[in-house]
This record gives sequence, structure tokens and C-alpha cells, in this order.
Amino acid sequence: MDRKKLIQLIREKKSFLCIGLDSDMDKIPGHLLGAEDPVFEFNRQIIEATHDLAVAYKPNLAFYECRGSAGWQSFEKTMAFLATFKEAVFTIADAKRGDIGNTSEQYARAFFDQAGADAVTVAPYMGSDSVKPFLKFEDKWVILLALTSNEGSKDFQFLQLRETGSEPCLYESVIRKSMAWGGPDNMMYVVGATRAEALENIRRIIPEHFLLIPGVGAQGGSLKEVAMHGMNKDCGLLVNSSRNIIFASGEHDFALKAREQALLMQEEMKQVLETRRLI
Amino acid sequence: MDRKKLIQLIREKKSFLCIGLDSDMDKIPGHLLGAEDPVFEFNRQIIEATHDLAVAYKPNLAFYECRGSAGWQSFEKTMAFLATFKEAVFTIADAKRGDIGNTSEQYARAFFDQAGADAVTVAPYMGSDSVKPFLKFEDKWVILLALTSNEGSKDFQFLQLRETGSEPCLYESVIRKSMAWGGPDNMMYVVGATRAEALENIRRIIPEHFLLIPGVGAQGGSLKEVAMHGMNKDCGLLVNSSRNIIFASGEHDFALKAREQALLMQEEMKQVLETRRLI
Repeated sequence: MDRKKLIQLIREKKSFLCIGLDSDMDKIPGHLLGAEDPVFEFNRQIIEATHDLAVAYKPNLAFYECRGSAGWQSFEKTMAFLATFKEAVFTIADAKRGDIGNTSEQYARAFFDQAGADAVTVAPYMGSDSVKPFLKFEDKWVILLALTSNEGSKDFQFLQLRETGSEPCLYESVIRKSMAWGGPDNMMYVVGATRAEALENIRRIIPEHFLLIPGVGAQGGSLKEVAMHGMNKDCGLLVNSSRNIIFASGEHDFALKAREQALLMQEEMKQVLETRRLI
Repeated sequence: MDRKKLIQLIREKKSFLCIGLDSDMDKIPGHLLGAEDPVFEFNRQIIEATHDLAVAYKPNLAFYECRGSAGWQSFEKTMAFLATFKEAVFTIADAKRGDIGNTSEQYARAFFDQAGADAVTVAPYMGSDSVKPFLKFEDKWVILLALTSNEGSKDFQFLQLRETGSEPCLYESVIRKSMAWGGPDNMMYVVGATRAEALENIRRIIPEHFLLIPGVGAQGGSLKEVAMHGMNKDCGLLVNSSRNIIFASGEHDFALKAREQALLMQEEMKQVLETRRLI
């Protein structure tokens, strides 16, 4: 999906919600466990119940890989089901991959060609040639880790660099350097919602790029603050919520309750978009 | 596998060779393509032909994931086959994973519980809570990316930090900080063979840890130099070779030729181990 279409989706749905499919087998409702593929059945019902409210879905690969190839099948079925919505949902394989060039190329094939994802999350530690192979695919996106929402982000991402002036810490260097590898049409950045104070700084460096914001909800970030500091003229945000939505209920009403939670977020997003005159 | 057993294997086999199973479907011999699972059949024959010469095998997940769940099945079958050698081979899932805590926990389950690997490669960018979940498994190992062998390693890993004195660049900070998360019994580090000049420096920081060294062969690193600068009193090295061994021939004799290449490396390793009086 290209940038123009993504912005159009946000305007149509009055939402910049991404639903994280962290579909933990141990947390899905018990009555689904008899299904042929309980995780896929769970995802299918969540997607059916929310696809008019969410612009994006983000399966988190760890929750599939922990069941080996059977889990990968649930992931593939989920991606195939999302593909039936055609250009009405943006899909993100949350995989945090990154390796030497010939290996990253295979990861790109896995998520773009095989799974048909629009975007994949990529870790920056190995540098340019670990990221560039993902950028060779038309209308596909790299979402590069910049500033994450977890406690451990303080270990390295905030390390002050000797280069003075414009790039005082590592996450800023990651953003600045990677701007030479791709642009706002094929790169986004992960910026944790728990780092709202850093969002303004990031927006000074990359005013146009989309940001994928995890950490709203379960991890404690605030949607209003994120919008205040991170929104740009095209919205420029995909705000992810996983557990708060998909595990809103562990009973038969799980899809309904997921919709209720998604609706609460979409309504708040609609207000923000209206206030900013983006819709 | 615990550290003692790994060191014992190195002494018994007179080798610190790790064979990288970057088993690219497009490169395996044509006559295997009719097999039920060509990639597994390729791996099986490579392992049969080399297991007395190699102490470790390292499937590179990208080359499996690029074929989706079918690829994951080839990976699982390969791990199950390696498990039949019991404590005679050390197994590394080269996956470069790392995410927030609850997600890394699922990745750890994927590779340690489901696939039965002894070790998994982990990316450090997200910090302590992205790595620690992998360290909760008994006799399992994290192999943390420190200094990689690719060109892009210069982008961030060598960035000079403001902290003066003992940790001037990022890769050193990664090593120093992570030493508080685990020890030489459950952590190793990836250090590219193309960075022999940095090995001595790294050995000053971590004299005891094992290092996984990719980049010998196809990427241009020298075994002698690596041994000279990186070996410790327990050997402390696993030197990986992938393409040079597994794709030594694309014909019916591929396993035989792989063995010849592995033997050349093992003989060189034996000499080094003897010179150092480690065997």
C-alpha cells in the first residue's frame, strides 16, 4: 500500500488505530480451543468485529513462532484473511528482523512476498545493509525501531554520542542516518508512546514520516499526548493497541468487547483528527 | 548444553567449527528438489557428512521463513534431526530476535522449548528487558550481537559515546552493560571475523565468554587471525562457516565436498588448538 492510500484510509475511517494481534494461545477464550486453528479463529473474529475502526493490523510474530510451524500457519492464514479486505487495511508484520544483506533479503521475501505484509518492523543495530534489502519492494515499508516503549530502551537508545550538536543520542543517530536509506514513502519509525516528551524532538528531525506508536494502554502511554506531540499534516501516526482490545474479554463476547474498546479509541482519534482539521 | 560440555566437545572433536545452515532453496543441488522436503534432505546429508568435524550447527532462520510455514517445518525437522545427536552437537537458532519482555519470552519459548535449540542470537537495541527473558532457561544461551561482520556495522556499532574512558563505542557499551544480565555460562557474543583488530579489545572486557565468529571465508575473515586475537584458555570461540562449506558443490557430491571443506577448517583448528596446548 502506498502513502497516499494509507492517508486516505485514515480519513475514511476517521482513525489511526493499529490493532496488535499478540494472539497468545494461553489468553484466547476457552470456547475457541476446539476450533481447527484457535488462534486464526480468534484473529478472524477480532478482525471481522473491528475492521471498520482500525486502519492497520499488526501480528506480533513471537506469539505465532512460539507454536513453531503450526503457529506460522496461523500467521499465514491471518495474513490471507487480511488480504481479503484488499486495500482497506494496512498490515504490519511485527518481526523486529535485521541481519547481513543476503539474509535480510530473505526476511523481506518472507514477510512481503510470502506473507503479503505491507510493512515489517526492523531492528537497526546492524546498520544500512541490514535495512536496505527491505526497501527494494514497491509499496512496501520498513518500520525501523527508533525509540521503544520498554524500560530497556534506556540502556542504549538514549546513550549520548560524542558527535555534538544535532545528534546527541543513539536513537536520533538511527533516525538521521536511516533517512538516507529511504524516505517518507517507504519508511516509518517505531516511537514508544511512553516517550511523548521525545516525540516533538523526533518531529523536528522527521516532520513527514509516519510513526508507529506502541505502548498506548497496557504500557501506560496517553493517546492525547501522543497526538499533541507527534501528529503532522497527514496525521502521520499509527497508534497501536494490542492487549487492551483483543483481550478485553476472555468469554464468548470477546469480539464484541474488542469492538467496544476499539470504538472508544477510534472516537478519541476522530476527535483529535477533527480538532486538527484533518477530517 | 552447559559450558563444561561444550568445552569437552571442542577438545574431543579438536574443532571449534560451527556450520551455518543458510540452506537457500535456490542453491541446493537440483537432484534434491524432488525430495519431500528438499531443504531438510540437504541439511540431513550435510549434517551426516560433517558432524564429527563440527561442534555446532547454526540454522539461519531467514532461509527458512522465506518459505513460510513450510520453511519452518524444514527448520523444525532439522532441529529434531540434530537432537538425535544428543549432546554431541551444540545448536544455534540464528534468529537475531529481541522485543519487549513479554514478546521476547515467546521468542525464547519458540527457540528453546519448541525447537530445542541450545542458543539463540539476540539483537541488543531494545536493552535489558528484551534480552533477559532468554536467560531464564537452564543450560540455554543468548548470543548477543556485539560487533557484526557486515559493512553496516560501522553505522552504529562504532559510534563513539560521550562516556569517556572504559566504554568509548556502542558495541563496547553493549558488552559491558549486558555482562550484568548474564555470565560466561549463559551468554556469548557475536563478533565478526572481519573485525580481528577489535577482538583483543573485546577479550580485555570479556576474557572468559565464548564468542561466535561469523565472516570467516565468504566474508573475508582469517581463521588464524581470529584465533590469535580471540582465543582464551577454554578456546572460547565458535567460528562459523556457511556458504563455503554447504555450497562447496552444487552437484551429487555436495555432502562429500562439504566434508572436504569442513575437514580443511577442522585441521587448521586442530593445529591452532595444539599450538595453544588446549588439546
